[in-house]
Amino acid sequence: MTNTPNLLTEKAGMSPGSLIHIGDIHEQQPLMSVTHYNKNHHETYEAKSLSKILINKPTDCLTWVNIEGLRNIELIKEIGKEFNIHPLVLEDILNTNQRPKLEEFEDYHYIVLKNLSLKDSDIIYEQVSILLLQNFVFTFREKHDDLFSPINQRLKISKSRLRLGGTDYLTYVILDIIVDQNFILQDAIDEIIDITEEELLDKPDHSTLIKIQKIKRELIFIRRTVSPLRELLASILRNGSDLIGDNTQIYFKDIYDHVLRVSETNELQRDMVYGLLDMYQTHMSNNMNEIMKVLTVFAAIFIPLTFLAGIYGMNFEYMPELKWRYGYPALWVVFIVTGLGLLFYFRKKKWL
Amino acid sequence: MTNTPNLLTEKAGMSPGSLIHIGDIHEQQPLMSVTHYNKNHHETYEAKSLSKILINKPTDCLTWVNIEGLRNIELIKEIGKEFNIHPLVLEDILNTNQRPKLEEFEDYHYIVLKNLSLKDSDIIYEQVSILLLQNFVFTFREKHDDLFSPINQRLKISKSRLRLGGTDYLTYVILDIIVDQNFILQDAIDEIIDITEEELLDKPDHSTLIKIQKIKRELIFIRRTVSPLRELLASILRNGSDLIGDNTQIYFKDIYDHVLRVSETNELQRDMVYGLLDMYQTHMSNNMNEIMKVLTVFAAIFIPLTFLAGIYGMNFEYMPELKWRYGYPALWVVFIVTGLGLLFYFRKKKWL
Amino acid sequence: MTNTPNLLTEKAGMSPGSLIHIGDIHEQQPLMSVTHYNKNHHETYEAKSLSKILINKPTDCLTWVNIEGLRNIELIKEIGKEFNIHPLVLEDILNTNQRPKLEEFEDYHYIVLKNLSLKDSDIIYEQVSILLLQNFVFTFREKHDDLFSPINQRLKISKSRLRLGGTDYLTYVILDIIVDQNFILQDAIDEIIDITEEELLDKPDHSTLIKIQKIKRELIFIRRTVSPLRELLASILRNGSDLIGDNTQIYFKDIYDHVLRVSETNELQRDMVYGLLDMYQTHMSNNMNEIMKVLTVFAAIFIPLTFLAGIYGMNFEYMPELKWRYGYPALWVVFIVTGLGLLFYFRKKKWL
Amino acid sequence: MTNTPNLLTEKAGMSPGSLIHIGDIHEQQPLMSVTHYNKNHHETYEAKSLSKILINKPTDCLTWVNIEGLRNIELIKEIGKEFNIHPLVLEDILNTNQRPKLEEFEDYHYIVLKNLSLKDSDIIYEQVSILLLQNFVFTFREKHDDLFSPINQRLKISKSRLRLGGTDYLTYVILDIIVDQNFILQDAIDEIIDITEEELLDKPDHSTLIKIQKIKRELIFIRRTVSPLRELLASILRNGSDLIGDNTQIYFKDIYDHVLRVSETNELQRDMVYGLLDMYQTHMSNNMNEIMKVLTVFAAIFIPLTFLAGIYGMNFEYMPELKWRYGYPALWVVFIVTGLGLLFYFRKKKWL
Amino acid sequence: MTNTPNLLTEKAGMSPGSLIHIGDIHEQQPLMSVTHYNKNHHETYEAKSLSKILINKPTDCLTWVNIEGLRNIELIKEIGKEFNIHPLVLEDILNTNQRPKLEEFEDYHYIVLKNLSLKDSDIIYEQVSILLLQNFVFTFREKHDDLFSPINQRLKISKSRLRLGGTDYLTYVILDIIVDQNFILQDAIDEIIDITEEELLDKPDHSTLIKIQKIKRELIFIRRTVSPLRELLASILRNGSDLIGDNTQIYFKDIYDHVLRVSETNELQRDMVYGLLDMYQTHMSNNMNEIMKVLTVFAAIFIPLTFLAGIYGMNFEYMPELKWRYGYPALWVVFIVTGLGLLFYFRKKKWL
Repeated sequence: MTNTPNLLTEKAGMSPGSLIHIGDIHEQQPLMSVTHYNKNHHETYEAKSLSKILINKPTDCLTWVNIEGLRNIELIKEIGKEFNIHPLVLEDILNTNQRPKLEEFEDYHYIVLKNLSLKDSDIIYEQVSILLLQNFVFTFREKHDDLFSPINQRLKISKSRLRLGGTDYLTYVILDIIVDQNFILQDAIDEIIDITEEELLDKPDHSTLIKIQKIKRELIFIRRTVSPLRELLASILRNGSDLIGDNTQIYFKDIYDHVLRVSETNELQRDMVYGLLDMYQTHMSNNMNEIMKVLTVFAAIFIPLTFLAGIYGMNFEYMPELKWRYGYPALWVVFIVTGLGLLFYFRKKKWL
Repeated sequence: MTNTPNLLTEKAGMSPGSLIHIGDIHEQQPLMSVTHYNKNHHETYEAKSLSKILINKPTDCLTWVNIEGLRNIELIKEIGKEFNIHPLVLEDILNTNQRPKLEEFEDYHYIVLKNLSLKDSDIIYEQVSILLLQNFVFTFREKHDDLFSPINQRLKISKSRLRLGGTDYLTYVILDIIVDQNFILQDAIDEIIDITEEELLDKPDHSTLIKIQKIKRELIFIRRTVSPLRELLASILRNGSDLIGDNTQIYFKDIYDHVLRVSETNELQRDMVYGLLDMYQTHMSNNMNEIMKVLTVFAAIFIPLTFLAGIYGMNFEYMPELKWRYGYPALWVVFIVTGLGLLFYFRKKKWL
Repeated sequence: MTNTPNLLTEKAGMSPGSLIHIGDIHEQQPLMSVTHYNKNHHETYEAKSLSKILINKPTDCLTWVNIEGLRNIELIKEIGKEFNIHPLVLEDILNTNQRPKLEEFEDYHYIVLKNLSLKDSDIIYEQVSILLLQNFVFTFREKHDDLFSPINQRLKISKSRLRLGGTDYLTYVILDIIVDQNFILQDAIDEIIDITEEELLDKPDHSTLIKIQKIKRELIFIRRTVSPLRELLASILRNGSDLIGDNTQIYFKDIYDHVLRVSETNELQRDMVYGLLDMYQTHMSNNMNEIMKVLTVFAAIFIPLTFLAGIYGMNFEYMPELKWRYGYPALWVVFIVTGLGLLFYFRKKKWL
Repeated sequence: MTNTPNLLTEKAGMSPGSLIHIGDIHEQQPLMSVTHYNKNHHETYEAKSLSKILINKPTDCLTWVNIEGLRNIELIKEIGKEFNIHPLVLEDILNTNQRPKLEEFEDYHYIVLKNLSLKDSDIIYEQVSILLLQNFVFTFREKHDDLFSPINQRLKISKSRLRLGGTDYLTYVILDIIVDQNFILQDAIDEIIDITEEELLDKPDHSTLIKIQKIKRELIFIRRTVSPLRELLASILRNGSDLIGDNTQIYFKDIYDHVLRVSETNELQRDMVYGLLDMYQTHMSNNMNEIMKVLTVFAAIFIPLTFLAGIYGMNFEYMPELKWRYGYPALWVVFIVTGLGLLFYFRKKKWL
Repeated sequence: MTNTPNLLTEKAGMSPGSLIHIGDIHEQQPLMSVTHYNKNHHETYEAKSLSKILINKPTDCLTWVNIEGLRNIELIKEIGKEFNIHPLVLEDILNTNQRPKLEEFEDYHYIVLKNLSLKDSDIIYEQVSILLLQNFVFTFREKHDDLFSPINQRLKISKSRLRLGGTDYLTYVILDIIVDQNFILQDAIDEIIDITEEELLDKPDHSTLIKIQKIKRELIFIRRTVSPLRELLASILRNGSDLIGDNTQIYFKDIYDHVLRVSETNELQRDMVYGLLDMYQTHMSNNMNEIMKVLTVFAAIFIPLTFLAGIYGMNFEYMPELKWRYGYPALWVVFIVTGLGLLFYFRKKKWL
């Protein structure tokens, strides 16, 4: 289930600020890609150590360092030392059980949030940490994939808005791409809801219920990451900051609107899932009703007839009907009339 | 279901501010109708390009440009350039998945909201964007119909309040007409609720449940557009603004009251729909109870009688009753007395 | 159901401020009763036009004009003109679908609220509008009854607090009398709840459920009028005002407390109604259980016995028991012992 | 049920401030006990009229007047006149349907709250009003008992904190004793919940459900008095006041904590009662399931056997089995094997 | 159940500030361990009386006094006197029914919270009180265990952050260790939820339900301690204070984040438990459905066949079928065809 606390257990009692990597995803080989850029200049390369980056950094350039994989604790310590990052922040970068949050320090902002993706109908949660400085942006990811490749593409285009903007604008672009992953996720969930709904209308069984409950649980998990994300963005918007310029503020407002939309879609999907649960429940009791009707129709038709047959199976010596020439066919008439009468009665009650 | 995220998926990863039209309704031929008016003057015509409008514009006149259909992206770019509209606003005009909101800029306000209408018992959502400037009002709609024709009528009447008012008053009139569509919609839903309730009291079946769940879903969707609308108007009322005069403020207060009413009616209708669901549930268990009663009455009356008949169908050599002269009629008396007794018992229990 | 929106539909698209009467109750003959009063003076008469009242008005007197029936639109226009009332206020007086609210203008306050009464176990909603000016109070009611007669009585008593107070105190007295109607209404509902509860404990049927759901719906409607009323009074208390003196403020606080009490009683009654619904539900499943028990007892006792009888009804040539002298009576012993054994078993299970 | 509104009905339409006693509990003989005390002095006696008290009052003493029974309206009028108490306050003292509240006037505070006690498993609500003045504290109770006797005891101890404190400290002690009654009440409810839970685990019946619903209702009533009490204390703490000294403030904070605890225990008990309801519901459906199992086992075993017996009861001329020497015992074998087989099957399904 | 109020009952009516120990856990021998430390110095010993500690205290050292067991009331009185602690605070230390709260006094802060641990699948609540002074930290615990031993370890390390920090940092470390106990607890609950879920999927019975309800209750209890803890930390963060330095503030923010996470995990676990309850409910009705199906299949197949057999058991003289040579085998064909037909029908309905 939630393995979050499990991992924390190991850490309870340790000195705060001890740097160890706590999390699920352990990339074999951490990668560090560096991009120096400004209006006129753009270069990107893989780096091994921080010192090389600092040496290579052209003046008047902004630098984006994207670290994928959190096993290189030394590197993170180095960054902490060089840029005077608070030890608790470094600890949070390495412990991937953080709630999305913004922490504002004098020289830098620390943003941590979750990147949600879908793999084989399970949701994968990756923690992304962002350090926003005046001329540097550090991003720390748990795994290695092409999430940020559209940003790399856009950085290559000279005179794009991204090349002209500051580190705040780059941060916006990174946040934007992560938030928009939610739409893709919610699309997928919409599709699953649609399929499940059709299954419900067709021939639902116990596995349908399990599917519905899985969606419900995933929606709960998504909501859990979305609502602190909303607070995060609201607090960026509320408190002006030196690091986020007034021109960029409106772009963060735009992400905020996206998060609101994600949040509303989440709520709407939850309403739908509750609707599905109701449908399943109704299907169950409809089913029960139908079973009962069948039982009742069979029992109510044949029990009286069996009684009649039982009567003429008795061995009394003086049963005049038994001697009648047309007693037997007459009784068949009674059988048929009674049977049809009851059938008619049940049809009128709409049980058939 | 919600096709909102589906469309956003295509856009995830694109550079912000890229202008493409994202939405469901694609009018074949975008229309642009222009009205220049002031106290003394009124003219209205169809236009093809912005430049013509700017040339034709009489001095001292207010201009309302109503664009129906969002395919002419060039035109929107032109407006953006001419009036210095922020790229994100232009993007929002074209992307019809916006939450209702107000964005205040120095020279203009951007208002976006949903126009709800009913078509074949489905709710149609159309996004309407309003750009409110000092002397211009731009409205952007997704489709082409006669929603705004009452405004055109009123603009023709010289010395009407509308002709005397500013662009803020025109904006109020536009908002008012869109908000009032909700009342028409809620009327229709009221009617559907009434019909469904009668159906429930009469002879409900599974289709009734599906109808109820459809209403419920539509009410959820309406609420989703109404609650941000309330925030929108509250923020207009809260923050005074140069663009919305003090005299017009009270009219916006009036729309705000309308929205509150819409919101309350929505809540009330939801309570009613939950009442309908309860009624359906109760009908179902009543039904079950009735089926069980029929089964029980039949079984409980005939099973003992059949047992009695079975006894006298046995082939023991020494069964004195079988020889009795009135054994058979006596048994009929027992049958009838037992049967009537049980009938009487069940009637006393009110099962019949 | 809610006919509110139905009536609004007609109005959607009209120019704001158009004066037409929208509402359910159309008194045949609008009545206008006028009272001039101060410490020393008191006169009251029926009037036909506003001008007469203004002419008759003694100096230094306060004037209360109570208009019952809203069909005389000309009169309302005249008042609007004479006292410079905003057109939207006049519109709201005539449209009886308003939410309770307070609107403060420089020279006057506009208060609108609902007067609830019970007629044949249906709740009647009447809209009462109050215009509070420095020396005038106008009340606009939909129908004609003796709601305000206690006020008239008290006005006749010279040196009563009412005669010494200003228009604010008169407004308080009017509001007080309307709010206190809710207590009478809630008393009646309490009684209905009591009766329904007894019915539930006695012998509930489907009509009981319908009664409960009716009460539930009425409680929802009452809550709908009470919660904006609370806001209304809170906003009177929050914002000091020239028209409501400091001495009178405490009386409005008193009404506010009454409204809180009404609101709490409403909530309490809703809890009780939910309790009733639970009781009904429990009664239903108890019923079902009892039916099932009867069926099971009958079936479980007689089915094995019938099987036994069936055995000895078989026609095998070699069935030694059939020849036994005491086979038949022995079988009766078996029948009785088995039957009693099962009866005993079911009694032990408390099914009988 | 709630007789509150019933009593108010009588009063609706009366002039505000008319002094009549509205309430349930009418003590035969109102008692007035007076205590004058300060650091050095302490005297206590029963008094009949206010004037005597004022004459007897030693200088530099604080006076606590405790009135039990509200029938002596003249006395209350006298207090109102002497200490310049607002008429609405006097009215509220006499009308025992008040919500707990604090009203601050320049020279005095008016506090009203409920004293809850349990009598024969019914909750008794008594209204206690407190007038806090600079040198006087008046308490008005509905009935006569020893609730305040611990205070009298403590007042007798010279140099106790109570003797050294002001009227604010006395007020605190009075409030404290009333609030702590809730703990005693909640203890009793805890015990009832425990007993009911055991009953549920043992052999619940309909009376258990009625007990649960009674507890639920009482918890609702308690919550109703606790939540305004919380507001009351919060407003004492929020607004500093001349009458409540800074040193005493912390004691009120302590009561506030008690009220929070009462409120949380109430919530917790409600959760428990809902748990009990769930348990009852589960018991009911378990019961149903068991009944159905018994029916099914009986029917499913004997119905096929009866069919077999029926076959060999047929009178066909050519039924070779009937002639077989071991036909009958062979059939018994079939009966027994089939019966045991089905028994085994049902045991495997855990129905037995 | 909740024994909280039970204990308070004893205390109701006592003079406030009377020092008696109210609580469940009574350690036999209270222990007092003292640590004096600063950058350079560290000593720790067991002490018996306060005076010795004060004498031994080196200058420039911070002192942490950890008292385990609350029976030594004299000691607490002594501390109160020496450090001028408010009597209500002393009372709260001894009464272990406090809600977690922070009380700020000029010279010291009083923090009280709950330490949760799990013992034999029951949650143990221990109250921990912290007195934070400029140079002293007092901790009061109910029982004696090694909860604080990691702190002692860290204090031994010279130049550890703990040795360099002030009493505020020590307070943080203490709070941190207590809050982190919740993660261990929630881990254990997660495991129980997992096991219960597997049990539900396997073969649930009544004991499963009882387990689920136990978890539910424990989650309610945990939430009850967590939400005031959140307020506590929020109020530390909100109000700057002389006793908590700016540098330490960020560490308290970190605990606050932990509490938020605990709170969210609690909510999530509650959602899961509700999911388990739903699963149980569904299992129950599935079970019922299956029983009904078996009953219906048996009854519906054999009842008509029995009727047929009954017919040919009748004793009419003229029943031609009885004479037919192949009547009997033909009837067997009818039996088998009917039986298989019904079986086929029920299989098509997926009842088999």
